[in-house]
Amino acid sequence: MDKFDFIKNDKLRKQIEFAVTVDKMKEVLRRNLVVSGERRENDAEHSWHLALMAMLLEEYSAEKVNIERVLKIALVHDLVEVYAGDTFAYDEKGYEDKEERERAAADKLFGSLESEQSAEFRALWDEFEAAETPESKYANAIDRIQPLILNYLMNGHTWKLGNVHAPQIYKRMDIIRTAAPELWQIVEGVIADSIEKGILKP
Amino acid sequence: MDKFDFIKNDKLRKQIEFAVTVDKMKEVLRRNLVVSGERRENDAEHSWHLALMAMLLEEYSAEKVNIERVLKIALVHDLVEVYAGDTFAYDEKGYEDKEERERAAADKLFGSLESEQSAEFRALWDEFEAAETPESKYANAIDRIQPLILNYLMNGHTWKLGNVHAPQIYKRMDIIRTAAPELWQIVEGVIADSIEKGILKP
Repeated sequence: MDKFDFIKNDKLRKQIEFAVTVDKMKEVLRRNLVVSGERRENDAEHSWHLALMAMLLEEYSAEKVNIERVLKIALVHDLVEVYAGDTFAYDEKGYEDKEERERAAADKLFGSLESEQSAEFRALWDEFEAAETPESKYANAIDRIQPLILNYLMNGHTWKLGNVHAPQIYKRMDIIRTAAPELWQIVEGVIADSIEKGILKP
Repeated sequence: MDKFDFIKNDKLRKQIEFAVTVDKMKEVLRRNLVVSGERRENDAEHSWHLALMAMLLEEYSAEKVNIERVLKIALVHDLVEVYAGDTFAYDEKGYEDKEERERAAADKLFGSLESEQSAEFRALWDEFEAAETPESKYANAIDRIQPLILNYLMNGHTWKLGNVHAPQIYKRMDIIRTAAPELWQIVEGVIADSIEKGILKP
């Protein structure tokens, strides 16, 4: 990418090239649809929606969180998919090598930034993946709720694609029970209503 | 929206309904294309890219900023467009009633949240619009740089649409000069190279 040769500050040029590389998030498609129902959601849209919902629902985090860190985690958590692609939440086979593929992608992507910032971004991604801090547990909880709501509004679109039954959803949503317990009523309500409507298998 | 009647907590139900309403950001199209060149960028994608770039380039803000507030401003700054639509940056006619349209949209959208949070979101949007605090000046600067870079990579797509000449871009980018002076070299480099390549009129 020699387009930005006019930037004489090396660090800044790498940052701008990084900003251009991650534009590809707009092309990484997820399985779920947007609310209009017309097309699949992409990673950039999902990341924005996640960050906004994290801001909106902060009061429901079981532990007090540093919301600045939560927002940074949300903005960065899917970046590796510009190289590794999206892995469908209910694709057991895809999950077998997900960790390896994503780690290689993280090395390549975050390695393109200068050292201090490279480490900062990598740490945010690692933190989300490990889901051990209050911030990353809460971010993971919202990362589950966001597509749950979209799927519910889209008559179970993703669940049908993956032949998903209610217990699989309960399992995937489990982190919400401890990280944001007041939001658990949404999981229960969505699942009960979806089964009743026949858009989800019990 | 009676879909979420199972949420017994009124405040939470309004927050979830808000999260669903703003999904429409994914349908509000801007004039510029994404880097793949295949389609126009939408507000959700732009807001994510803006927030990420604000995080990435924080060190270039002329004044020290509270990055948490910058990120919140970035996530919220275009929300009113779910009702008011996007106004093309170089559309003088559209700008005549932009303020009025967007204020009505803000009343409606932010008014759907309960009082304290309603005021918080409204204040973030007002702050961005006024561009008087360090955080909002910096956010506005990045909000100018992000589409500038995309347009440059897309061979001046938006500039051609709007029959834009270099002085109009300099004017629109002006806030960068004071809010993030080290980024001004990007404006100068992009404009000079674009004129040389014949994709921008001097």
